[in-house]
Order: sequence, then C-alpha cells, then structure tokens
Amino acid sequence: MKKSGSDDRLYLDDLRVGQRLTSGTHVVDEEQIKAFARQFDPQPFHLDKEAAKRSLFSGLVAGGWHTAAITMRLLVEGGLPLAGGTIGAGGELNWPNPTRPGDTLQVESEVLEIRPSWSRPDRGVATVRSLTRNQRNEVVQVLTAKLIVPRRV
Amino acid sequence: MKKSGSDDRLYLDDLRVGQRLTSGTHVVDEEQIKAFARQFDPQPFHLDKEAAKRSLFSGLVAGGWHTAAITMRLLVEGGLPLAGGTIGAGGELNWPNPTRPGDTLQVESEVLEIRPSWSRPDRGVATVRSLTRNQRNEVVQVLTAKLIVPRRV
Repeated sequence: MKKSGSDDRLYLDDLRVGQRLTSGTHVVDEEQIKAFARQFDPQPFHLDKEAAKRSLFSGLVAGGWHTAAITMRLLVEGGLPLAGGTIGAGGELNWPNPTRPGDTLQVESEVLEIRPSWSRPDRGVATVRSLTRNQRNEVVQVLTAKLIVPRRV
Repeated sequence: MKKSGSDDRLYLDDLRVGQRLTSGTHVVDEEQIKAFARQFDPQPFHLDKEAAKRSLFSGLVAGGWHTAAITMRLLVEGGLPLAGGTIGAGGELNWPNPTRPGDTLQVESEVLEIRPSWSRPDRGVATVRSLTRNQRNEVVQVLTAKLIVPRRV
C-alpha cells in the first residue's frame, strides 16, 4: 500500500531512453464527439451523421484536437506520471486515422530522448512519442512532444 | 450581397504562398480554463489559482490543448475559410507563452506551401502556419499544419 505522502511520479532522473508507459483507456461516443465539436470544431463531419457520410471521412469522426485532448487526459491520469505534471513545450502531431464513435482509445508512450538543462539544473526536457490507438490497434494519433520534467534535487 | 448559393470559401487553386488570413477574436476566462481542464487536462495549474501560483507558471494558465482547441474554433469560424472545411493531417505545435485568464486570442495564418496531389487530382495539401497571439501581441501558439484542401474541379 502506498502512503499518500510518497512520490511515485517520475523525475527526469528516473526516465531512460526506450522506456515505455501505457495509459488507461477511454471510450469515445457520439455525444462526446458532438459536444467537443459544438464548442471547438463546428464542422459537419463532427456534428451531423448524414453530412458526415457524404464527407471525406464517410461517417462521423472526432476532430483531431478532440483526439489530442482525450490523449492528454489519458496521459495526465496515469499514462505518463511525471513529477511536476505533464507540461509540453510543443511537439509534432499526426492523425493517420480518424477517431470514430465507439472507439476505445489507449496511449502508449516511449521515451525517445532525455536532455538535462544546462541553464536550469532543476529540470530538463524529455522527448516522448505517444501513440494513441483504437481497439483495432489502428493508430489515430502520433504525438512526439517535448516535455519539461523536474530533476530530483 | 452574397447569395447563399455562392461559394466564397477557398479552394487549393485560390491559395498563394505568402497569403495571410486573420481570424476573429476569442476572450478566454477562468471558467473556460477550468472547464476544459476538468474534462481533458486536470492539473493543478489549470484548476486551482493558489496551486498555480506555486507552479512553473506563477498563476493559472490554460492548457496547451485548450489553446489549440480555441485556435481551431477561430480557424473554423472564418480564420481559414477553406472549401471542404479545416481538415488537418497533422503538424507541428509550439507554445512559447501560456494563455492566461482574460486573454483575447486571435489567429493569423500564412500559407507556406501548396502542393496538388498527384494521385488525387481533386485535392492537394496546403502547409499553413497559424500564429495565435494574445492582446499583448505575445505568441501563445505556433501551429504549422498540413491541411487537405479540395481543388476546383
């Protein structure tokens, strides 16, 4: 049993290149897709099943930014338990396949690079590639992010 | 006066390298920041003013994905009026400064590259850099996206 005072989150010093971490899962449904779209991405292929059928996607899909937001939730809630939180300075993003209603998403992250800061000895930057997959093992998002991670000082 | 049947959205053929487009504005408040964070990015510096003061950010900030989602809304609602919608295949993302409560965001986009598809003559890819700035003209997000844009056929 872990004491609430203990810190099992990862510092830069705890990471190693090639390390893999797996998140929990999240099931995306039509209502979530439409709700996100109404607020941030009001396009027919995210809002209207019939219009979506006639679109490039041949059916209702989640917006890429919705997939990104769900991925973030999965990372924050245990997929990438970094000390100091999940703080990104930026990154590269690809959406090879769309997220569709009923998809179960899960994120697998791999540490690609670890770089302690020269100017700030209390922190560094970790480059992490996070693949978001659906239940058919199709990749819906590839995110390669530069994350600010504290060091054990 | 424009007829509702007329199409003033931009096709690949209407774009030119160097072309700039400016979005409307969006005011971000504390409640929006917390609501997005509760749903997608539940970290103390997005949820709790006091905890945020003690964080890297020295105050409450919007998550990067929230800034990205607001940027998308501004692009979809006129900032980048592409025929067929704003459909990204992926891109690069940087957050040089955080978005804070009270910030007014606006997006300026510039067409960097236009590439008709060889295999699909009805479309192509435009590379567009979208800078999201606050009212102090600080850049809070740089997005360089590859967008799928239909051709006039």
